[in-house]
Amino acid sequence: MKGVLYNINPSATVVDISNSVQSYDLLDGALTIAQAYSYYPKDTIHVVVVDPGVGTSRRPILVTAGTHYFVAPDNGVLSLVYEREERVSVRHITSSHYFLEPVSQTFHGRDIFAAVAGWLSKGMEPSKFGETIDDYVRFTAPRAKNGESNQLKGIVLKVDKFGSLITNITPADVPEMFGGQFKINVGNAAIMKLVTNYAEGAKGEVVAILGSGGFLEISVNKGSAAQVAGANKGSEVTVTMG
Amino acid sequence: MKGVLYNINPSATVVDISNSVQSYDLLDGALTIAQAYSYYPKDTIHVVVVDPGVGTSRRPILVTAGTHYFVAPDNGVLSLVYEREERVSVRHITSSHYFLEPVSQTFHGRDIFAAVAGWLSKGMEPSKFGETIDDYVRFTAPRAKNGESNQLKGIVLKVDKFGSLITNITPADVPEMFGGQFKINVGNAAIMKLVTNYAEGAKGEVVAILGSGGFLEISVNKGSAAQVAGANKGSEVTVTMG
Amino acid sequence: MKGVLYNINPSATVVDISNSVQSYDLLDGALTIAQAYSYYPKDTIHVVVVDPGVGTSRRPILVTAGTHYFVAPDNGVLSLVYEREERVSVRHITSSHYFLEPVSQTFHGRDIFAAVAGWLSKGMEPSKFGETIDDYVRFTAPRAKNGESNQLKGIVLKVDKFGSLITNITPADVPEMFGGQFKINVGNAAIMKLVTNYAEGAKGEVVAILGSGGFLEISVNKGSAAQVAGANKGSEVTVTMG
Repeated sequence: MKGVLYNINPSATVVDISNSVQSYDLLDGALTIAQAYSYYPKDTIHVVVVDPGVGTSRRPILVTAGTHYFVAPDNGVLSLVYEREERVSVRHITSSHYFLEPVSQTFHGRDIFAAVAGWLSKGMEPSKFGETIDDYVRFTAPRAKNGESNQLKGIVLKVDKFGSLITNITPADVPEMFGGQFKINVGNAAIMKLVTNYAEGAKGEVVAILGSGGFLEISVNKGSAAQVAGANKGSEVTVTMG
Repeated sequence: MKGVLYNINPSATVVDISNSVQSYDLLDGALTIAQAYSYYPKDTIHVVVVDPGVGTSRRPILVTAGTHYFVAPDNGVLSLVYEREERVSVRHITSSHYFLEPVSQTFHGRDIFAAVAGWLSKGMEPSKFGETIDDYVRFTAPRAKNGESNQLKGIVLKVDKFGSLITNITPADVPEMFGGQFKINVGNAAIMKLVTNYAEGAKGEVVAILGSGGFLEISVNKGSAAQVAGANKGSEVTVTMG
Repeated sequence: MKGVLYNINPSATVVDISNSVQSYDLLDGALTIAQAYSYYPKDTIHVVVVDPGVGTSRRPILVTAGTHYFVAPDNGVLSLVYEREERVSVRHITSSHYFLEPVSQTFHGRDIFAAVAGWLSKGMEPSKFGETIDDYVRFTAPRAKNGESNQLKGIVLKVDKFGSLITNITPADVPEMFGGQFKINVGNAAIMKLVTNYAEGAKGEVVAILGSGGFLEISVNKGSAAQVAGANKGSEVTVTMG
């Protein structure tokens, strides 16, 4: 993919955001790009290739969202970007003369996405690549919901490389946690401590922390919360207040 | 290695093609570079450091092949590049005053290859680095062969990160497969379906597909063909036609 | 982190030295940066984010050492750099108006280190970021020690991706090894052979070699010394001379 890009635009700056998105995992891809893109300069072109449906009829799209561009498959991987930006315009990429020929059935990242990103980076207008569409695919990330009185139910969205459990719970969902008493149950762990840094818990203690992506995380100082709590992606997380 | 390169040529553009070649695996290295190099701009310098014999008497070489340069150990890792290009010139790198001194016994990638690539990227002539040689090492990638009547026998060249089995069989070996009836046996799987995208098979179904590198692949939609078929690198693949 | 950097300085050249430092492992981080930095051009800014204490009161620091800059947590991860360089100046980074606001509790790499590196790369004076300090954290890497007469005791500092055991023993510790007779014991292996390249040992044979980082390594040709010797990080290594 980088070869194709540099071939079209030798003076491009190409950066890897992540090569560790779980294979086939659209939600992980959506979280990864949504947490990273806004730190990049305006007019950055983000190429997203989390594409379990490569070669099917799913469309390639070119998205303008806020001050950023995205080239991606129309499979929902940009759903969280759509949520965060007010001005979103999505085009179905149809101008195949910009593609790398012959287009393979299995590697559109190289033959379509990288080629379109290359031309776009040279100043080509988005409108050259295809018409805008409204029926693009988007999904809603699972949201934390109120359970019984004074309870909130969320889930583990992903487990990071340290074994911390990233939940779908934001501070706005549980403002009472900050300063008040609470209990979080996940797997076989019950957490009553909110810390402000990973090292604050005793060694092996399971604690809650507000992560850098804006979500509540369950974490163990120098250990794996997933292992200690016996929890994993999709595990239920219950916050009980008071 | 990147430090050495930038030290010699601060304005170089340095790109990682792959850091996931299997340790010691020359064939995997040869496949990786052969499938990637031609997508890069002309005059790109490809530094290949799959080098199980580092420190032995195997020679460092500088190769001009088509419109690309390669700096590599003379261990056959460029064999598939030699096959694909008509104009190939191989030089034994002997001009040690371009090396990073002292040259370590175990990291020629840093001390020889990166240094030579740095000087080359600054416009130094290939002839400055050593004389051309003819007896460079090349191996022939295992080719699919005709078995009994209407059979073709190939092997699995590698297993990719999705668990798909990349075979050494090309469409030219089995033109009858495209449109006709066939059966592929590999491990304990029998495949009779050729798909045009990974998602076309039912979940768990083992199918054949033409991969982006030009080889026939055995694949499972959202699963590992290696696991399902009980096959691995080197496993025999038999295609029976009709 | 790269987004933050490019946002501040779009013309920066950003390079990944390593993403494979063992989580929480300060010594591994210290070894990795100490073995790599000097190969980079002068005035390179090295951003080090091995930071198990992120969010605690450990200070962010900006270090000038020889001709290089370092932005890092003050947790000792630069200890081996301090050892190697004569002119070292360490500043406590306090000028929070250069930080990315709001500073998260858990990702100072992005919010502090990358931002400071960005401004520094644009030519900002180090003195703008905070005052020099003398009480910065440093640890001494474990050194090989004399054991009984004609013995030297060291340890395994790390196991590399090939399974080789990188010890803390340098040629200066055991000059008699080069040319004389010796026996090295580590795990259940006894090594009496010093080779000059990885391929020199017979297949499966455990040998000693001088590694590219300047330390004695225990290695197996095309195999894992860790596995064969049953040794690991921290294992004792005894060299007996004569």
